[in-house]
Order: sequence, then structure tokens, then C-alpha cells
Amino acid sequence: MNKKGRGLLIVISGPSGAGKGTICKSFLERNREVSLSVSATTRDPRKGEVEGVNYYFMTKEDFKEKINSNDFLEYAEVYDNYYGTPKSNVEEMLENGVDVILEIDIQGALKVKENTEEGVFIFILPPSMQELKQRIINRGSETKESLMKRFKSAYKEINFVSKYNYAVVNDKVEIAVEKLEAIIAAEKCRVDRIKDSILDSKEGIIHEQLYD
Amino acid sequence: MNKKGRGLLIVISGPSGAGKGTICKSFLERNREVSLSVSATTRDPRKGEVEGVNYYFMTKEDFKEKINSNDFLEYAEVYDNYYGTPKSNVEEMLENGVDVILEIDIQGALKVKENTEEGVFIFILPPSMQELKQRIINRGSETKESLMKRFKSAYKEINFVSKYNYAVVNDKVEIAVEKLEAIIAAEKCRVDRIKDSILDSKEGIIHEQLYD
Repeated sequence: MNKKGRGLLIVISGPSGAGKGTICKSFLERNREVSLSVSATTRDPRKGEVEGVNYYFMTKEDFKEKINSNDFLEYAEVYDNYYGTPKSNVEEMLENGVDVILEIDIQGALKVKENTEEGVFIFILPPSMQELKQRIINRGSETKESLMKRFKSAYKEINFVSKYNYAVVNDKVEIAVEKLEAIIAAEKCRVDRIKDSILDSKEGIIHEQLYD
Repeated sequence: MNKKGRGLLIVISGPSGAGKGTICKSFLERNREVSLSVSATTRDPRKGEVEGVNYYFMTKEDFKEKINSNDFLEYAEVYDNYYGTPKSNVEEMLENGVDVILEIDIQGALKVKENTEEGVFIFILPPSMQELKQRIINRGSETKESLMKRFKSAYKEINFVSKYNYAVVNDKVEIAVEKLEAIIAAEKCRVDRIKDSILDSKEGIIHEQLYD
């Protein structure tokens, strides 16, 4: 294992419209040493999308093979295409001591939680349900029915907060990002994460040197 | 309860020589809204000591009465005098939404842990056992035997880290204080602390307003 210790798997999730994308983007700009997990998909690349940056593009056959070999932290089928988080990429980064952000919807986050014992699960909350509604409306390009559906679903999804470790209200992006940074710094001080290395380093000292 | 919610009880502890006093002092200078818990004692005030600032000074009779009425988070008898943390003062501050720091030795911290279900327990670690030894020596004014006794006790005490929530290495005071600040900020985002208020505020919204 890397000298820094294993990286943190940071799962950032929340209802549609809570602003998890904006927070992750701002967080990653300020914390260049942290990596964003890149999803795999079977859909065709859109113009400008780059393999390994926006997505790992793969065939359905390859994707299904990876499902069978249990190489996804989570995956879902959406409109006849698959999307998923490749386990091996994330594992490699964590093993190298790199912190990994996984930005993901609530269903995905709950699957990740089932499939791994690690992970710091952070729920991004809108400042209020009113504000959430407004944000969903502001995205525009949707019918009134689909807006209502989105909003009702977001309203229900907030109940899932109890499955998470932390909740951060996205009132001001900068403050939310600072909270995220605090959570990560604090998690690195958690005794259940670092106990072994503390006790190891203590025992590693030569007694003669101490009791001279 | 105060609108801000209940304050955090932050227990800062660690072996003698780890520097918990220095860290607390620096932390409190930077975070004026946080209060330091003042201990009660039966010893006589020394010159310059102020009631309610350095200690609450009380008679042995009063102290014992408080012990019997279970009004200490922890107490100990040292050289024929009592020292303790009055429960009611701490409780009042927490209830008013004030975060309270309790700077305390390991035995005291473990008693606090037995006597309350709340509390964020933070263990201050010396950068190394060598450094710890040097710090104990630098305090001076002790015999070689008492130095050795202090050091051996500190060495053993580090095993108690596993009873704590967080461990902070006191390599540079400023960095240690920043970690403390991060821990407190993160604790305020913990879902198990704030879940009820999140779900309450969600349900508090009038549905008609949302679905207009």
C-alpha cells in the first residue's frame, strides 16, 4: 500500500436539482489531487466526448461481461443503454492513496453502499424544497408534467438521507465545498481508519532508543 | 432548544506532553464562539486565579454533595483534593447551542465517555514517541525517575486511542488546529446528528405551496 495510506472513496449524491454536479466541479478545481471516477457506458460518444475523460465507452457485450465478473461498484440500464462505475479503476486509485469522488444519483449510491464496505457517503441537500423546485424549473426544456415528476421524486428521495454519513446543504456553493473539504479532512483523522498505523508506528520505535 | 441546534461536546485528550493544552489555547483564540469547560476543584485558589475562569472553587462538602447528586461528567481525587467537570454548566451551554471544549487527561475522558452518550472524542498524538520524550524532558523541573514514569505512562496511554473517535497528530500546532476545526465542521454535517431537523424542515413545508 502507498505510504499515504489508502485513498478515500467519497460518494457524492442527492436528489436531482440539489446541485451535486456544481459542488463536485468546484471541489475538484480546488482539490486537484482528488480524482473523479469516470463511468462506463454503452451509449455512443457524443461530439467532443473523450474516452476515459467523459466516459469509458464500451460495447454491450463487454459491459455484460464486466457485470458477470462483478467489476462494477454499481450499474444501471437507462433507455436501452448501460451506465456503471468500473470497480477496478476506482480500486487502483484508492490503492495508490488517491481520494476518489463518485458523483452519482441516489439509487446508484445505495448500490455502491451494498457493494463496498468503505465509502464516505455525502448527501447534498437543496437549501429548501421551494428552492429545489425553482432549480428544477430553471433547467427548463421540460414539460410541466415531467417537472412535477422530477420534483415529486426529489421530494421523496430526501428521505434516503438517513442512509448517508453526512448531509451538506447547498445554499452557497463555496460554503458547501468547504464543508466537503472539512468532511474529508476529518475522515482522515477517524481512529477507525488510522488506528492500526498509529499503533504500528508506536511499536516500530526501538525501545533502547527510548529508554536510554 | 436553540435554533442552531444543540452544541457539540468536544473532548480533547491525550497523553501528557502531546500538547493538548497548546492546541486548545490556539483553537479557542481562533474560534471565539466556542467555550472551554471550567473545572471545579476543592483546592485553594492560587494567586491570580479567578473563580469561574480558572476553576470553580468549592468546599469538599459541596463537592461531595455534587458527586452524590451525579452532577459531574467526571471527577478525580488528586493529592487529597477533588477536581471535576460540573455537568450542569456544560449541559446549559450545549442546550444553548454553544460548542464546549473539554480539555482533559485520558482517564477523565474515558469517564466522560461512560457518563454521556454525546461527545466527540479527539485524541492528540505527539508526532513521534521520541518527540514526546523530548517534550516531557523540556518541561524540566522533574527528577529523572519522574520523567521516566511520565514517559512510560504516556507510552502506554497511546493504546487508549482506540476508544476515541478521532486522532490528531500534533506536529505543527496550526495544522493540528485546522484538523480540529475540520472535525467540528464535519461533525455538524453528520446525518445521525441532523437527520431529524432535515426531515422536520422538509415536512414543515406546506404542500399547497409546492404543488401550485
